[in-house]
Amino acid sequence: MTERLTLYSYWRSSAAYRVRIGLNLKGLPYETVPVHLVRNGGEQHLPDYARANPQKLVPILEHGQRQLRQSLAILEYLDEVWPTPPLLPATARERQRVRALAQLVACDIHPLNNLRVMRFFEHEWNVPQSERDVWMKHWMIEGLEAFETLLADHPSTAEFCDGHAPTLADCCLVPQVYNARRFGVDMAPFPTIRRIEAACLALPAFDAARPERQPDAPAAQPASAARA
Amino acid sequence: MTERLTLYSYWRSSAAYRVRIGLNLKGLPYETVPVHLVRNGGEQHLPDYARANPQKLVPILEHGQRQLRQSLAILEYLDEVWPTPPLLPATARERQRVRALAQLVACDIHPLNNLRVMRFFEHEWNVPQSERDVWMKHWMIEGLEAFETLLADHPSTAEFCDGHAPTLADCCLVPQVYNARRFGVDMAPFPTIRRIEAACLALPAFDAARPERQPDAPAAQPASAARA
Repeated sequence: MTERLTLYSYWRSSAAYRVRIGLNLKGLPYETVPVHLVRNGGEQHLPDYARANPQKLVPILEHGQRQLRQSLAILEYLDEVWPTPPLLPATARERQRVRALAQLVACDIHPLNNLRVMRFFEHEWNVPQSERDVWMKHWMIEGLEAFETLLADHPSTAEFCDGHAPTLADCCLVPQVYNARRFGVDMAPFPTIRRIEAACLALPAFDAARPERQPDAPAAQPASAARA
Repeated sequence: MTERLTLYSYWRSSAAYRVRIGLNLKGLPYETVPVHLVRNGGEQHLPDYARANPQKLVPILEHGQRQLRQSLAILEYLDEVWPTPPLLPATARERQRVRALAQLVACDIHPLNNLRVMRFFEHEWNVPQSERDVWMKHWMIEGLEAFETLLADHPSTAEFCDGHAPTLADCCLVPQVYNARRFGVDMAPFPTIRRIEAACLALPAFDAARPERQPDAPAAQPASAARA
């Protein structure tokens, strides 16, 4: 396993953020190739990138000659090829819960808030920014409410979403909370999520994966920075 | 493993359809409890169901006392608890590809076309039916184009998405194609997908999972039936 790992990433992409956390938790060195999703109409549409990923989405993780797509499938791959430390718990039942939490974010919140969706609203339907923000927050709040309930009601919830070490669920939750804060979602109603987010961000693996730590992040990031 | 399996399902839910295929492929008997997503404003909002699934989405699979959520996480659970026949191929690399194909559908197409999204457009934004259909088709076509390219370009594609037996990817593809046909997407540009769909539906496990075979399907389903 000496093949190089290269992540095609965008600093603010929450799917790329998930994979960065996973790579860091595994202690795997990787090279970042930034793909700017906004500049020049989106560098993910350039022919070389679109050939690698016909969906024109980030991230892609290259492992040697292989091009791996879809953030959760990439994380499962990392967990299979480098099993320690595990991103999934020990039993089928616990793994089911962790994957379901991860998918709550990856299937039911994030896809609705994606940049391409915002572009559709702006360019096809002329939906004003204020209404696009209502949409954003609607799905984030609905999803985070369910996530909070599923955490608060379950005995496996501890320092992290499942037990005493981060899993796939935490890899998805932290980027989602970053997005929620960015769009001004009031996080007060989600105490369990906030507590787990803080525990995660205290770990170097999560800290180094933060958007503002990425090589393609703008030099200064004031809270009011333009949305990308 | 003599605990009962109970699927909270809606005949036309494509997430429930995925799980029905998986249960049938494993040869697992299960009871269906229909949850009508349209009648009475949506039975998934009734208190008993919302307690079981705070997201108020189908499906849930009950296995004994456990309530399992999220269709892909349920399929992974079935594959771990009943490994034969497998829903995932033998190597980490192949599994990565199969999961990525499944997630292309489950993360990048289906969430945008969900009933709750259509309701938002109708009730919050007064988007007319014709425009909602444009939206539906836009994401289906974009996703199916990428799916077709990823199939057509890869040596592992055979009778099924990966090799000679159905996997998680086929469990997701077939319900997505059902939805695409229902909304009038022209399937002519997707020959590989059409061929694999036909191979799947020729298997009893897929055939028995079809929406129109479910106990809660309306008695007759003319092609022009009202959309639910």
